[in-house]
Amino acid sequence: MAWFRGKFATVIIISQLVFILIIGLFGKYSREAGADKDASVTHDEENSINRYYGVFQDVNVMVFVGFGFLMTFLKKYGYGAVGFTFLVATFAIEWSTIVRGLIFNLKGGKFEIGVESLIEADFSAAVVLISFGAILGKSSPLQLIIMAIVEVVLSVGNEYLGLEIFEVTDVGGSMFIHAFGAYFGLGVAWILQRDANENNEKEGATYNSDLSAMIGTLFLWMFWPSFNGALVENELRHRAVINTYFSLAACCIVTFAISSLSNKEGKIEMVAIQNATLAGGVAVGTSADLLINPWGAITVGSIAAIVSTLGFKYCTPFLCDKLKLHDTCGVHNLHGMPGILGGVVGAIAATFATFETYGDSLVVQFPELGSTPSPRTAGSQAGYQILALAVTLAISLVGGLVTGLIMKLKIWDEPSDRDLFSDYPFWDDVTGGLPNESDARYQPIPRQEVEAGHEDDGGNGVNMTEISKAASAAAE
Amino acid sequence: MAWFRGKFATVIIISQLVFILIIGLFGKYSREAGADKDASVTHDEENSINRYYGVFQDVNVMVFVGFGFLMTFLKKYGYGAVGFTFLVATFAIEWSTIVRGLIFNLKGGKFEIGVESLIEADFSAAVVLISFGAILGKSSPLQLIIMAIVEVVLSVGNEYLGLEIFEVTDVGGSMFIHAFGAYFGLGVAWILQRDANENNEKEGATYNSDLSAMIGTLFLWMFWPSFNGALVENELRHRAVINTYFSLAACCIVTFAISSLSNKEGKIEMVAIQNATLAGGVAVGTSADLLINPWGAITVGSIAAIVSTLGFKYCTPFLCDKLKLHDTCGVHNLHGMPGILGGVVGAIAATFATFETYGDSLVVQFPELGSTPSPRTAGSQAGYQILALAVTLAISLVGGLVTGLIMKLKIWDEPSDRDLFSDYPFWDDVTGGLPNESDARYQPIPRQEVEAGHEDDGGNGVNMTEISKAASAAAE
Amino acid sequence: MAWFRGKFATVIIISQLVFILIIGLFGKYSREAGADKDASVTHDEENSINRYYGVFQDVNVMVFVGFGFLMTFLKKYGYGAVGFTFLVATFAIEWSTIVRGLIFNLKGGKFEIGVESLIEADFSAAVVLISFGAILGKSSPLQLIIMAIVEVVLSVGNEYLGLEIFEVTDVGGSMFIHAFGAYFGLGVAWILQRDANENNEKEGATYNSDLSAMIGTLFLWMFWPSFNGALVENELRHRAVINTYFSLAACCIVTFAISSLSNKEGKIEMVAIQNATLAGGVAVGTSADLLINPWGAITVGSIAAIVSTLGFKYCTPFLCDKLKLHDTCGVHNLHGMPGILGGVVGAIAATFATFETYGDSLVVQFPELGSTPSPRTAGSQAGYQILALAVTLAISLVGGLVTGLIMKLKIWDEPSDRDLFSDYPFWDDVTGGLPNESDARYQPIPRQEVEAGHEDDGGNGVNMTEISKAASAAAE
Repeated sequence: MAWFRGKFATVIIISQLVFILIIGLFGKYSREAGADKDASVTHDEENSINRYYGVFQDVNVMVFVGFGFLMTFLKKYGYGAVGFTFLVATFAIEWSTIVRGLIFNLKGGKFEIGVESLIEADFSAAVVLISFGAILGKSSPLQLIIMAIVEVVLSVGNEYLGLEIFEVTDVGGSMFIHAFGAYFGLGVAWILQRDANENNEKEGATYNSDLSAMIGTLFLWMFWPSFNGALVENELRHRAVINTYFSLAACCIVTFAISSLSNKEGKIEMVAIQNATLAGGVAVGTSADLLINPWGAITVGSIAAIVSTLGFKYCTPFLCDKLKLHDTCGVHNLHGMPGILGGVVGAIAATFATFETYGDSLVVQFPELGSTPSPRTAGSQAGYQILALAVTLAISLVGGLVTGLIMKLKIWDEPSDRDLFSDYPFWDDVTGGLPNESDARYQPIPRQEVEAGHEDDGGNGVNMTEISKAASAAAE
Repeated sequence: MAWFRGKFATVIIISQLVFILIIGLFGKYSREAGADKDASVTHDEENSINRYYGVFQDVNVMVFVGFGFLMTFLKKYGYGAVGFTFLVATFAIEWSTIVRGLIFNLKGGKFEIGVESLIEADFSAAVVLISFGAILGKSSPLQLIIMAIVEVVLSVGNEYLGLEIFEVTDVGGSMFIHAFGAYFGLGVAWILQRDANENNEKEGATYNSDLSAMIGTLFLWMFWPSFNGALVENELRHRAVINTYFSLAACCIVTFAISSLSNKEGKIEMVAIQNATLAGGVAVGTSADLLINPWGAITVGSIAAIVSTLGFKYCTPFLCDKLKLHDTCGVHNLHGMPGILGGVVGAIAATFATFETYGDSLVVQFPELGSTPSPRTAGSQAGYQILALAVTLAISLVGGLVTGLIMKLKIWDEPSDRDLFSDYPFWDDVTGGLPNESDARYQPIPRQEVEAGHEDDGGNGVNMTEISKAASAAAE
Repeated sequence: MAWFRGKFATVIIISQLVFILIIGLFGKYSREAGADKDASVTHDEENSINRYYGVFQDVNVMVFVGFGFLMTFLKKYGYGAVGFTFLVATFAIEWSTIVRGLIFNLKGGKFEIGVESLIEADFSAAVVLISFGAILGKSSPLQLIIMAIVEVVLSVGNEYLGLEIFEVTDVGGSMFIHAFGAYFGLGVAWILQRDANENNEKEGATYNSDLSAMIGTLFLWMFWPSFNGALVENELRHRAVINTYFSLAACCIVTFAISSLSNKEGKIEMVAIQNATLAGGVAVGTSADLLINPWGAITVGSIAAIVSTLGFKYCTPFLCDKLKLHDTCGVHNLHGMPGILGGVVGAIAATFATFETYGDSLVVQFPELGSTPSPRTAGSQAGYQILALAVTLAISLVGGLVTGLIMKLKIWDEPSDRDLFSDYPFWDDVTGGLPNESDARYQPIPRQEVEAGHEDDGGNGVNMTEISKAASAAAE
């Protein structure tokens, strides 16, 4: 597999050299990070590091521990879940710093890098990781890097369109982060068509892997108020925290109820607790810093729980069976539908945005609405919010489909059907702790070879059993 | 089990509708969260979100990851530990926001919700979770919801009595949180009488479950300074952090010594490291922001370690054997006795509280002592502290006994003896990862049926073995 | 093993009594923690707790969860990894507060304790834990306590030399924390000579233990910017965060590339992902708050990744085979070489330090360089940086060798060869969850007895197999 080795390393090392070059040419410290020598120590009592660093670290934990461990529910893909999250997120952080700097912040041939840039970089990492969830266990690290390269550009571009052209609000990224990441990932997953493996016994969880996934769930759940309030300050952040917190609390409680109600024995299903409990954070994203009131936040979170829990129960199997759209982590239920819900809630909240209710902060939250004379009515602002949502869905879905085609190229070493949902093909020495890992003796085979030689297998796992048997026989 | 399904979901959904109604009628954003449009963005440099949000999140981690994972030590109750912590805590957060708002903060028909409310809601969740620890693995989620409903009202009422009527200090909740939660839970546990299962092989830990419990221990231990300093500011918080930190450090070290000393082979016992290392945080709770000095904090933590470690070694078995009081997590040792110790240390520290030592902050810490003319002496303040402790013990114990009687009603679907300490009855598809789970084939039976049919079993686990055998035989 | 029991507990309890005495005599709250009654509540809007507490807690998480779980990769030493980290860190925190207070901060017979002291105490804990990594699984808790006692004194002394005499900068401790801890630990490891156990099957990881180690890796990785920026403020901290973040991101990405490239199948090795991804934080430590620019930080992180990844692949086996220097966690690769690299990078950065680039902050970062008239040139500052690095290496290595000799004394109950990398000898009831733990029946034997009786075994694990066989036979 030396070709893989060289290719993967080469792509990564070249990307690093390019990043160093671009950041060296165009990047510089922000004023508050001391690029300007006049911004000296003694004058800096209000340095933004003090107001943003805490929430940045919360978001950072969500990205690396939250997403990473949430995806460890697959019993034989724990290294891939945590490890590729680590790889893809750091790659997206560097790359999105460049893309965002060039698109949003270029002034005098330079873009500034400060603590706010780090938060935005983490947001871009989140977009890519959501898409990763749709194809978890079904692609090579090289494919993931390719996806990150394209997706960061499209998602930052879409965000620019929404924030700068349509001038909409989306403080917690219901549209620009969650909906975008989900539908982009679904587009990729649909093209990859790695969905014929329903019988793949590796696509399952164990008691322990389900528990370790809860580490991810809880850190995502706890720090979501930081996510939704990261880029605003003072009373806006205060409100974002309260709204997100109550939405999430309600979402957790209602998820337990709906999960039990939809189970034929009345039992609670872990997949819902791991995922649907978080939908309240997604659904309140756009409106988190608006005056939706605590009762409104609880209502939004409750609705999100119903949508998401039923989605995991009925929608994911439907998509897989009828549309051949296999969504490993169910990102459609956690990020897709709740993201759309969040965009709609934001539009509804916008219709109530007046100077009487918001006071001076109106201009901060809706620049077009709050300036005098106001070029927009609250109703037209709501229209723009819906427009941004529609554009987001279009760009992400089409972008995902096109990116899927690129990722399908054989040069990116897509894993064979036999190697789905398994750490074996990409991680060294993974067999140690796996009990009864009889198939650990086999050698990895690139997908094309397997398919060329065993076309009658249909990728449905039959060949895997045979190879296992052969390996067992050989070992005796 | 369709009756369970409907009942559980119905109770939860009705509670949500009621919560939305009450919070809609009485709740509003706090001034600093922008309910007041004059509190505009530009004026808010001192918004409380900046001073409270970081410690709030630390407390939040303690509640969800700390308590949740600490309780995963049971080998077959991991989902219940993390999942029911999630459910009970979010329920208590919503409900206590209402109860506390109505009891403490009603002004002009409305109570305010701000970041301080979120911290207090987490504190109420902690109270209920401590009680949960005493009955871990022995009750249904419906029973836990009932417990939370009653306990939140009683604990907030008790706190009102202590803070507003007796005007005592208890910054870290040694009395109002830890002692209350522990003795309430012990009262419930004594009524439930699920203590005849000493032979229940499921009430044990595995190497992995003991390690995952350490995730809970460490996050509780690390963030305890935030817990004890969450509701005060500036030098008071500074002091609370230092005192709690040194108390915990000493407690950890001494726990290792006492654990080794009390083991016949001189070995260290995980149950002590998981639990007794935290007693220093409990025991310094009341006095955390007082001038007890670092050496005093170390002394308190060392004493707490001795009390708690010996409690786990000798007191828990004694209570179980002699009083038929089964305390799954040993909350009596971690929260009960150290909580009483904390109350007493607070009273002692109060006797040294003078204007000479505390300066202007005296009135903040002891309102009755610091105002001029002072209506109390330091000695009488100490007396009130002890009074508040005694009242707390009385209300919590009696409240727990009465609540236990309510929880004992058959309508709440108490698990049968056979289903103790097991995720099986309440969680879907838990058998996947369990090695040699021969009893996974059996169907859950409500407790009353089992007892009606097998009265001679005495609930001592004998019937479980028989059913297992029958299941194994049937499987052959 | 009663002698162990009493000895261990006695040493610990005596140390606590001594600590209480010393801190009682010499320690007091810092002014901002309210020792001074005039620093009253109302005046304290700029209390240092607000600026330092968040980063302190991040560092705290790194020490306890980060180091603790990173070391759980050994399959049968999970309790020891987390538990002894807990013990050693809390011990070092108390002891270093005293040592640092007496060496650095004694004024008028008292040293002050504030939130900055807590950060520095965590740093000292990190030094000892790095050394612990070199001898993980190879020493008794008593030996670790002895090591902590000596190492804290030497490392604080070395730091005093560097900061106060040589007046160098080392904000993130590349030299004084990482290099010191690594070479001290290697010195100890070389003396202990517990390196002949290459065949020891317990010195391995399982799938689950490798995953739980990633919890440690991720928390270390995420919070490293807090570590490197903990003790500075405003734009210096801002810069430290940015530089560390980009260095770490690049280090993670490049580690994946180099790990795949150096594996004969092109696969990624977990040991590299767990460890080498962190080397970027070490290597940028000295220069973190200097104007090295984001592209410079990425470059440093990339180089660190190469050095560290290749170190794990080639250097650790070489040291073990050729020098009989067994380094359990490979601290030479994660902290040693990257620490030296960090010191050198710092020296290079110092040569560019001028008033033109740094402005007023020059005097904060290089006191000798920034004062007027300046007693040093940038070049001579660089020379002092290298001097401090050389002195650090000398003191740590010699100190480690000498401390190893002390630790080798038989009174500290060094584990026998058979008990290496196992929780069995020091933790009660560890067998529960271990599958096929046939050697769990044997009784622990102090090293000297084993060696006296079986001198022909040569400590190479042969006797272990025999004992296992005997135990198995006995069990039949």
